[in-house]
Formats: sequence, structure tokens, C-alpha cells
Amino acid sequence: MNYSLGIDIGGTNTNIGLTTEEGNVVAVETFKTKAFDKVEDYLDEITKRVVILCKKVEPKDTILGVGIGAPNGNYYNGTIEHAPNLQFNGIIELKKELEPRLKQEGFDLKVTVTNDANAAAMGEMIYGKAKFVKDFLMITLGTGLGSGIVVGGKLVYGSTGFAGEVGHTIVEPNGRQCNCGRNGCLERYCSATGIVITAKEKLEECAACSLLREYDENELTSKAIYECALKGDKIALECFDYTARILARGIANAAEVTSPRKVYLFGGLANSGELLINPLRKYLEEELYTVYRNTIEIEQSGLKEADAAILGAAALTFE
Amino acid sequence: MNYSLGIDIGGTNTNIGLTTEEGNVVAVETFKTKAFDKVEDYLDEITKRVVILCKKVEPKDTILGVGIGAPNGNYYNGTIEHAPNLQFNGIIELKKELEPRLKQEGFDLKVTVTNDANAAAMGEMIYGKAKFVKDFLMITLGTGLGSGIVVGGKLVYGSTGFAGEVGHTIVEPNGRQCNCGRNGCLERYCSATGIVITAKEKLEECAACSLLREYDENELTSKAIYECALKGDKIALECFDYTARILARGIANAAEVTSPRKVYLFGGLANSGELLINPLRKYLEEELYTVYRNTIEIEQSGLKEADAAILGAAALTFE
Repeated sequence: MNYSLGIDIGGTNTNIGLTTEEGNVVAVETFKTKAFDKVEDYLDEITKRVVILCKKVEPKDTILGVGIGAPNGNYYNGTIEHAPNLQFNGIIELKKELEPRLKQEGFDLKVTVTNDANAAAMGEMIYGKAKFVKDFLMITLGTGLGSGIVVGGKLVYGSTGFAGEVGHTIVEPNGRQCNCGRNGCLERYCSATGIVITAKEKLEECAACSLLREYDENELTSKAIYECALKGDKIALECFDYTARILARGIANAAEVTSPRKVYLFGGLANSGELLINPLRKYLEEELYTVYRNTIEIEQSGLKEADAAILGAAALTFE
Repeated sequence: MNYSLGIDIGGTNTNIGLTTEEGNVVAVETFKTKAFDKVEDYLDEITKRVVILCKKVEPKDTILGVGIGAPNGNYYNGTIEHAPNLQFNGIIELKKELEPRLKQEGFDLKVTVTNDANAAAMGEMIYGKAKFVKDFLMITLGTGLGSGIVVGGKLVYGSTGFAGEVGHTIVEPNGRQCNCGRNGCLERYCSATGIVITAKEKLEECAACSLLREYDENELTSKAIYECALKGDKIALECFDYTARILARGIANAAEVTSPRKVYLFGGLANSGELLINPLRKYLEEELYTVYRNTIEIEQSGLKEADAAILGAAALTFE
């Protein structure tokens, strides 16, 4: 039996899992990313926790490597570069710093880095629904919108290692202001953040009564909108419909580049299931150029949310 | 020395070239596509002309195969499917029909089909500027806007064989009506057809004098706009500026999917050179998501226009 280490770096927590080839997470180490001011201390902590997990495995040459999924993770450079939601500025040399640290502890392991959406796409290929799917898009709907592009069974990294920023394609010229400094990016509409903006806009535009009006402005989350939609609230349902329509446009534009057979949705908002996916299927067919109609299936990811980020990262070691 | 046959199928002419591995077109057969009402007769004519060219080569096993670039050409199926500008409706089984015909004539050659923009991308990789470029976009600016997507040194065909329709990504929701039945497709703005629409709109919007007003409505071509722009005509220059701005948006959206290192422009409008490419470079940097800025170079194709379609098609036989 072979093992891998999957590391999921988030703004709040860092989760490190020891995984088997079959996709079981057998042990996890978790700590607060935010607890560290200096990147060196943070890297030391990762090293310490990885070593704890590695010591559980005998013989140690059954450990294939360490995979890391991180915001703005770069596959070619083995780095995190200018991640807006981490307290460490600039470039973090994960691979260059972690490999020698681990070697010093007696574990000569290759460290592979990519962004979280790419890691999810790898996870989908190895442990999810995409085992036999050569061309697909992975769309992660969290605070933002991430994407992993798979062409011919391989993740697309592109010339920079940053390929797959579908969340920052422009779907509405002169549209909503995005954190990236431009206007009309897909993720400003289609993400947990985006649907809340939509709800606020709709509540302002019209005076119709809505369960959504019972929430304070800062209590109004994508989950609240989901729950109101389940109860049949008209404005909440309109929010999902609008999100689906704009998401269809963004997916269509990306699909017209690579012609995927499947689109997998993952993350918070994707858990709304048919409430989002049903209108999305309808709008996608409308938005697609003729030759692609009825060629693309949209499904919820087959990855279990709790383990997905760790398994996705661990899957990088199989490449 | 090895040889290939490259066939460029267009609405008006069909050009068949005998090419060398080095990229020289040593003999050409040309005939009118429109001269044939029945697809069988057309396929017989292609066969006859291919045989004429093949007989020039000794020994015949130095002929690698036949590559065909055609509108709506499908690589997987070896077909042309529902090409709007050909008189033959439905699906043309190029590979299935031509291979046995050629075999009967004593030439056991593999026939490979793809669309014209993909053929141009193959030509760029083998005979043009992209010999050492693994990730690039080929954009052909003719009557419409075609594109070939190269990732990791390979053409992207996607699950359908129709990948790479950047011309039909939506850049302006509720924008200009496209022949495909939708609104706001990139090619309605950025093509020989698109820039003429832009010119007519601008001439209607304002009363300023312009050299463009000297043309009859149906004489106003992209070439005329180019010539007026060269003479410093303000409105003609604005047309190029507007085309560049919208093209930048379309290229940015596609580049955010695959992160190319180069974008090559080919075809009629691309010959406007710096008049288009200079503003395009500027706008592309503005339109791109931060991580891609200063990572993408835009250049005119390195293929000679006269031979490009034949060489691109012939290059398919090297795959």
C-alpha cells in the first residue's frame, strides 16, 4: 500500500492529511494558518506536522510525496504567489523551503504545489467522478470562483502555471467591481459572495415581501438565500436563477475554448444542488455555440467536501 | 525527403498542395469548390487531383499522408459538419470517403481533417514562429474569427473535436446579432466583417468628415478602412482602436483559461500589422487578470499568407 501527504492551505486553517492510494484519509493534522506571523515559523510547523504523519508509515519508501493545494499556488515554481487572503506577502517558496527541511528529518519527498481548484480537479480525476473523463472543467464555488481545466486527461497549467482563472473572465463589461481591480468578473456574480450581492440588489430594486428581509445585512449569507429558496421564496429563487444564468455565460465562454465533456461543480454554493444546476443546464444550452449544444453535462462533484481538499492535494503526487 | 499533401477547402476554391517536410509547396492543384452540386463528384475531383500530385513523387512511400483544413472540419470524425459557407449540407465524410478512393488508385494514405484555424496553428508550430512555443493561441481574422488552441505543444480538440471557437465567445451580452443566432459573439466585432459594421456605426453616430464617407456602402471593406487609417483618418483609426479593445477582451477571456505565452494573429485583418497590434497590446494588459499581465506576447503569424492554409493542412500529417 502506498501513501501520500495532502496539504490544504487556507487563509484560516492548514490541514495536512495522510492518505492512501485508494483515497482514504487515515490521519489529519490541523493548525491555524493565522497563528504565524513569520513565514519561516509557518514552514517549520508544516514540516513538524508532516513528519508526525510520515512516522506513522512503515516502510517509509511507500510515501509517494507531498501535494499542496493553496490559493495562488504555482505548479511550475512550487510557490504561493501574492495570495490576497494569506498574511504572508509576496512569494512563498514552498517547494524550495520544504524539501530540504523534510530531507533533514530523513524524508526525501518531492513537494508539488498547485492552486486549490486544480487540486480539486486532480481529486475528481483520481477519486471522484472524472476517472474516465479526459476533458472537463472543475468549478469551485466558494468565497470566489476557482477553476481547474483538464484537457486530454491532463491539468492545464499554461505558460505561467496559473492557467484556469475562469472566475476572472469578464462576463459583464462595466459590471460589478471585482477585488482584482477590474469590472464584471464571473466570480463577482457566481460565488457565495456574488449571490449575496445579487440578493441585496434584488431586495433594493423591488419592494416585494421576502423571507430574505428578515436577515440583517451581515447575516445574509449564501446559505440563508439557499434556505429561503428551499421554502419557495420568490426573490431567493430569482437569485439562484440569475446566478445560474451568468454562470452559464462564463462556463460557455470557457467551454468554447476547450470543449469539455463534463463540468463539475464543487464547494459551498454547489451544494445547493438542483436549485442551481437545473437552471444552469437550461441556460448553458442557450448560451453555447451550436456545435457544443447537448455535448456538455453539468454535475455536482463526486468528492466528499470534508476530505476533498486534502485528497485533491494528495492526488498531485500521482502525476 | 518526405512529402505531404495539404488540402485547403474554402467556400470558393479548393487548393491542394504537394509539400516537402521543409515547408515548400512544390506543386498546387486548384479548382472551384462551387463547381460541384453533388458531394460525390466533389470527392472524386479531390481524389483525381491528389493522384496527379502523388504521381510526381518517387518513391511513393515518401508521402506521409493527406491533411485537410476545412470550415467546421472535425478531427475525430474526419468530417466537415454543417459548414454554413459550403453548398453541401449536413456531414461530409471526408476521411471515410477519400481513403478508399485513394487506395483504389494505389495510394494508401491516411487522411486527417481539422478546421482551418487549427490547421493554421499546426502550420505555425511546424513552419512558423511557434516551433518552440508550447502554449499559444492562433487567431485567424478573416470573414469570421477562427482560433486554434495549443496547450503543452498539442492542439486542443476537446471532447467534440470542435474545441477553439473563441470567435463565438460572448464579449458583449445583448450585443450585435451573430449569424449563429446569439448576440455579442467576438467575431461580430473582430473580423473583416466586424470592423466594417463598426465603421458603419461610427459613420452614422457622428457627422464628422471622414475619407470613409467617399465609399459606397457595399464598397466599404476592411481593406478600405485600413487604407483610410493609414492616411490618418480619425474615424478609420477609431475603428481599429475599437476592434483592438474588444479583441483584447476576447483574447483575455480565452487566455485566462489556458494561459498562453503567445498569441499569433493571422489573415486579412491581421495584415493591418501595428495599426491593430499596437492598441491590442495596450488593451490586453488592461483586460487581463493580474497574474497574466506581461506574460503574453502578441505577434503577427510567421506563415506566408499564400501558402499558409496548404502548409497548415499538410502539417497535420506530422502529428
